[in-house]
Amino acid sequence: MRDFSDTLKPSSDGTAILEAERARSNILVDELSKHLLSRNDFLERQKRITAILEKEPLFRKGQQLNLSRPERYHLGLARAKAQRRLGREHGWDEEDYKMAEYLTDEMSPFHLHYTMFANTIKEQASDDQKKTWMPLIDSWKILGAYAQTELGHGSNVRGLECEARWDPKAKEFIIHSPYLTASKWWNGTMGRTATHAIVVAQLLIPKDNSPTATEFVHHGNVSFVVQIRDEKTHQPLPGIIIGDIGPKYGYTSMDNGYMLFDHFRVPHDAMLSRYVKVNPNTGEFTRKGHPATLYGSLTFVRANIVQHSRLVLARAVTIAVRYTSIRRQFSDRDAATKNASELPVLDYPTVQIRILPLLATTFALHYTGEAMYNLYYRSRAAIEKGDFSSIAELHSTSSGLKSLCTTYAANGIETCRRAMGGHGFGGGSGLIGINNDYLSKPTVEGDNWMITQQVASYLIKKMEAAVNTPSAPATDKTDELFKMYLSTRDNRTPVCVLSQGSISNEAIMEAFRWRAAVLSYQAYQDRVVKKRKWNSLLIKLHKLSNVYSQKLLVENFYDALQSSPLSDTNAAVMNDLYRLYALHTMDEDPLSFITTGAVTSSSIEELEDAVLLLMTEKIRPHAVKLVDAWAMPDYLLDSALGRSDGKVYEDLWDRAHRQNPLNKVTFNVDWESDEIVKGSGDGGRHILAKL
Amino acid sequence: MRDFSDTLKPSSDGTAILEAERARSNILVDELSKHLLSRNDFLERQKRITAILEKEPLFRKGQQLNLSRPERYHLGLARAKAQRRLGREHGWDEEDYKMAEYLTDEMSPFHLHYTMFANTIKEQASDDQKKTWMPLIDSWKILGAYAQTELGHGSNVRGLECEARWDPKAKEFIIHSPYLTASKWWNGTMGRTATHAIVVAQLLIPKDNSPTATEFVHHGNVSFVVQIRDEKTHQPLPGIIIGDIGPKYGYTSMDNGYMLFDHFRVPHDAMLSRYVKVNPNTGEFTRKGHPATLYGSLTFVRANIVQHSRLVLARAVTIAVRYTSIRRQFSDRDAATKNASELPVLDYPTVQIRILPLLATTFALHYTGEAMYNLYYRSRAAIEKGDFSSIAELHSTSSGLKSLCTTYAANGIETCRRAMGGHGFGGGSGLIGINNDYLSKPTVEGDNWMITQQVASYLIKKMEAAVNTPSAPATDKTDELFKMYLSTRDNRTPVCVLSQGSISNEAIMEAFRWRAAVLSYQAYQDRVVKKRKWNSLLIKLHKLSNVYSQKLLVENFYDALQSSPLSDTNAAVMNDLYRLYALHTMDEDPLSFITTGAVTSSSIEELEDAVLLLMTEKIRPHAVKLVDAWAMPDYLLDSALGRSDGKVYEDLWDRAHRQNPLNKVTFNVDWESDEIVKGSGDGGRHILAKL
Repeated sequence: MRDFSDTLKPSSDGTAILEAERARSNILVDELSKHLLSRNDFLERQKRITAILEKEPLFRKGQQLNLSRPERYHLGLARAKAQRRLGREHGWDEEDYKMAEYLTDEMSPFHLHYTMFANTIKEQASDDQKKTWMPLIDSWKILGAYAQTELGHGSNVRGLECEARWDPKAKEFIIHSPYLTASKWWNGTMGRTATHAIVVAQLLIPKDNSPTATEFVHHGNVSFVVQIRDEKTHQPLPGIIIGDIGPKYGYTSMDNGYMLFDHFRVPHDAMLSRYVKVNPNTGEFTRKGHPATLYGSLTFVRANIVQHSRLVLARAVTIAVRYTSIRRQFSDRDAATKNASELPVLDYPTVQIRILPLLATTFALHYTGEAMYNLYYRSRAAIEKGDFSSIAELHSTSSGLKSLCTTYAANGIETCRRAMGGHGFGGGSGLIGINNDYLSKPTVEGDNWMITQQVASYLIKKMEAAVNTPSAPATDKTDELFKMYLSTRDNRTPVCVLSQGSISNEAIMEAFRWRAAVLSYQAYQDRVVKKRKWNSLLIKLHKLSNVYSQKLLVENFYDALQSSPLSDTNAAVMNDLYRLYALHTMDEDPLSFITTGAVTSSSIEELEDAVLLLMTEKIRPHAVKLVDAWAMPDYLLDSALGRSDGKVYEDLWDRAHRQNPLNKVTFNVDWESDEIVKGSGDGGRHILAKL
Repeated sequence: MRDFSDTLKPSSDGTAILEAERARSNILVDELSKHLLSRNDFLERQKRITAILEKEPLFRKGQQLNLSRPERYHLGLARAKAQRRLGREHGWDEEDYKMAEYLTDEMSPFHLHYTMFANTIKEQASDDQKKTWMPLIDSWKILGAYAQTELGHGSNVRGLECEARWDPKAKEFIIHSPYLTASKWWNGTMGRTATHAIVVAQLLIPKDNSPTATEFVHHGNVSFVVQIRDEKTHQPLPGIIIGDIGPKYGYTSMDNGYMLFDHFRVPHDAMLSRYVKVNPNTGEFTRKGHPATLYGSLTFVRANIVQHSRLVLARAVTIAVRYTSIRRQFSDRDAATKNASELPVLDYPTVQIRILPLLATTFALHYTGEAMYNLYYRSRAAIEKGDFSSIAELHSTSSGLKSLCTTYAANGIETCRRAMGGHGFGGGSGLIGINNDYLSKPTVEGDNWMITQQVASYLIKKMEAAVNTPSAPATDKTDELFKMYLSTRDNRTPVCVLSQGSISNEAIMEAFRWRAAVLSYQAYQDRVVKKRKWNSLLIKLHKLSNVYSQKLLVENFYDALQSSPLSDTNAAVMNDLYRLYALHTMDEDPLSFITTGAVTSSSIEELEDAVLLLMTEKIRPHAVKLVDAWAMPDYLLDSALGRSDGKVYEDLWDRAHRQNPLNKVTFNVDWESDEIVKGSGDGGRHILAKL
């Protein structure tokens, strides 16, 4: 379709604007990209898989937002299957598959099969069970889901209602849902896809193993591997009701499911029995192994979420920085000439203050993601050797960071979106999908408010230990901090972070450390000394967790600066990004730095101006190149506003005028007629019939 | 379809729980509802229209989230037309139609016709033009849109690129889009629906009215009424390209459009000429009337948005309060017995701190909405009498409040959603539609960050006037405050808001007033005395606007308490809600109250505990009845979590198991096959072909 719009151009040239932005910064983009994205050959892999997906018609993203939610599952399944076939063709390894799912940018209906289903079998199945199941899993002959969460219970796993009663006579377990709230719920891959599932249920064994007993002994939750659908018909087996729970904010391609059991029998060897066993003859229940091994996979998932958050936020920031560099609106009120040209909106401090601290946060998230990764693998290696001493720190750190980092990223997407004004609300923003999907992250794998209790518990215990053994040598960094705090708090003078514009990186870090120590001590006082009710302290404990996690981000960033492998140019900008992240974070809750005696009042008074100066002088000139360093493929971004070539308006026009199927339909707008579509077969009535 | 799930119940009875919540509060719900919702017979009208819509199959909401975006426009148009027919049948007045659109809870594709299109004709057309157009508008024989915003320009209306050149020979205007960015964009009702549009374009008149002139005189933007589609075929007229811009975050039912003109000719009388005229013979351009009249409708729209924000936030809070009262999770760590029952999640302070201050905010928004309404009609009456003195205040107040109140409501929806954990992410939350739609509000009708400049400008001018005429009698409340500030600031002692748990309502209000005055003075100093660049002050000016608007909310709430018509019980709770809103607001930015000398440090130290006590002791027991008072019909809420009868789990089950069309399809999950749907005609391939 050709028309007069073909001859029109935007009044300003986005490509030239971005090129000019890039030309005026001396950042070495390639060096920085490699610095950020070399682990597991990320950059090379991203490039290679992107090239493959871009060629596949099934992986085109242009029409996704025009599909209904049921259609999105169809598409998701087709893509999940096609990814397996592409992998076979191109010889993909496991990381390649993950990259393909990341670039496709939707949760695969196969996702739970190769994550929680496979991992649970690997971790909790006996050797015999593994021999049975792993070949079926690895060949994708069966497809598994993980059925733990229920309609009535999520976070409190002990409250699950689904039961598994041992039948001593038949030597089988009877899985049953006594209430509607016992229905499994939210379990991904289960709604329409899976043939099998891990089912977590409360184990009940009849008293004295008697077939006629009416009393049962409760042994808590155990896991079963259960076939849930017929291998030929793909229909649920008798005694099971399964389905997809329906539309959600995001995860349109994923079939989050529900499942009810009506006295459904599974054999004795369905119970995963590496750590727990029921003696089939006596009904005796035994448990072995360190309890910590059971939440290893949760910690792993949280650590992964922490690591991933930088990419999510970087994506939103990439789009926002590019678009707001190109978009012009209003000229400077104080301009010398009357007809001064319009300014890029990123030149306005009110736009900078929303986007540039988030840009700095992407780098803070990067270094903390690295630290989290290292802590995880260090702990895991120790655990393999039977040393469980690092588990508490690992668990606390991954919980606190999961909460803080996903909050940063989830809120950051929306902040970037709003900073882009009207077009930020449109489909061309490229943020609709990621926003809707990522809104799950503050809730899943431990609600962001709930799990901060675990961090606070840990810190209170650490402080109690430090108080009780003030002169023992420090056992770790936290103990060292707390002991330093205890021994110096009477003579402490607040540090000067800022003085007449000069900034001390080390003082910044000291301030975050001190604040965390003071609040840890207050929590210890409240709970241990004053014996205040736990629930009455919850809000404070949540703040403590965030304060402690912010300290980690600042420390990890600071440490990275000390041993930076970057060229001077890049290292200098990284230094400014550290300052911007830290000072802006300080400025978000300045009173806490004063009341804890962490920082001088005069430093706090200078914060606002220091942040402004960092943004306008130090970061703004490099903003476009800094987001370039995150090396987000245009295919991933799928954003008119965030295109690397700056063709914002051309792309918006193309999406609207060339790609919108609604524009192919002519409507009957006469209100007295109940025909909707003009001159088509049924006048559009089949659509209305779907209600 | 009957199955064993029919016999199952939830393990706890949501209906009984809500009844118990209601029984333990002595709030008089009916009295409070009438207090909040009597204007324009809101309650009666809501009940009456709800009863009508609930009976109409076309207005069922159950399947909306399963429709594609193009289908949602079909449905939206069908409903818009049906509403007209229902209105004819039931004799609806204008308020009834608005109520029907509000309850249907989607933006009608007819919306712009009866708002901006009709209003612009009423306000800017000459009497002759009105005679031509109003009968066509009132009979809905034509359908109008309002085409101002363009692809390249929104906020800066002066930057619009669409041109209207006067042709002295033909005595016509030639409307033309010289660039792609000149395309009209975002204009509601225009994409597929409208037959006509108001087109805002830059008026260019040839020098000396010469047909051969190559120089043109620019006269700024004027408005034209233009037929854009053929009355029979509904196709765009030659020289116009129109369409729908495609998917967006929200407004799925609305056809936001784009429109380009290729030297499109309109007659002389297409230009709306109540205030502006082009002499058809001489080409002379004349303008009359007070410029303020031109942004009257913008102020009206903002005032409406401010008033409406309470209902949006109340809706999210209603759902959150009811669901978190019913949902149980974990027992009290400090409970005396080991097997204590699980607590309603609303009993946890970490849930309260997210929801209950927002509950208080709904009432704060109510009283300020009322004040905004009164200010608007008072100013309007004055303007009608030729008194323009209140325009600056009206403009500033409506801008500042639009920014603050829509930020409260937009953020509040998401805060409520996250506080509801996993089910908050599901379609049963009832928040998906309102969230997606409302996210537009921080941007439209003046971006929330941009328009705060207007408030700051106003306050700086007012402060300058107060400084220059310190002894003149106060002209209004702001002038009075500023003069009080100027005369007492040397002897000011901070007020004590909180002392050992006792709270002073008046001191709270004084604190908010003082803080606003200090920051206004600082802004005046920065800009007028120190002559600092406007753009360098933008962040501070944004904060000033919010501080000033928060002062308005506190003042209006305080004033309402002084003359409350409520019974003692209700008045007492309202008193606590005032305190919760104000003290929580203070606790969100405590340092500003200290550094401005507004409040004693000891008051600030007590804030956290005071807020906690208000929530747990004063508001929590009444929470369910307080949201009941907002009288949200279940039909409007369309929420399993927020149902007034508490049947949360039954409804979630029903939506998933009985209503999800995806569960009627059986899939082929074998990855080696490219069939998607098992045993259906084309295996689901027609869906994949839509890509």
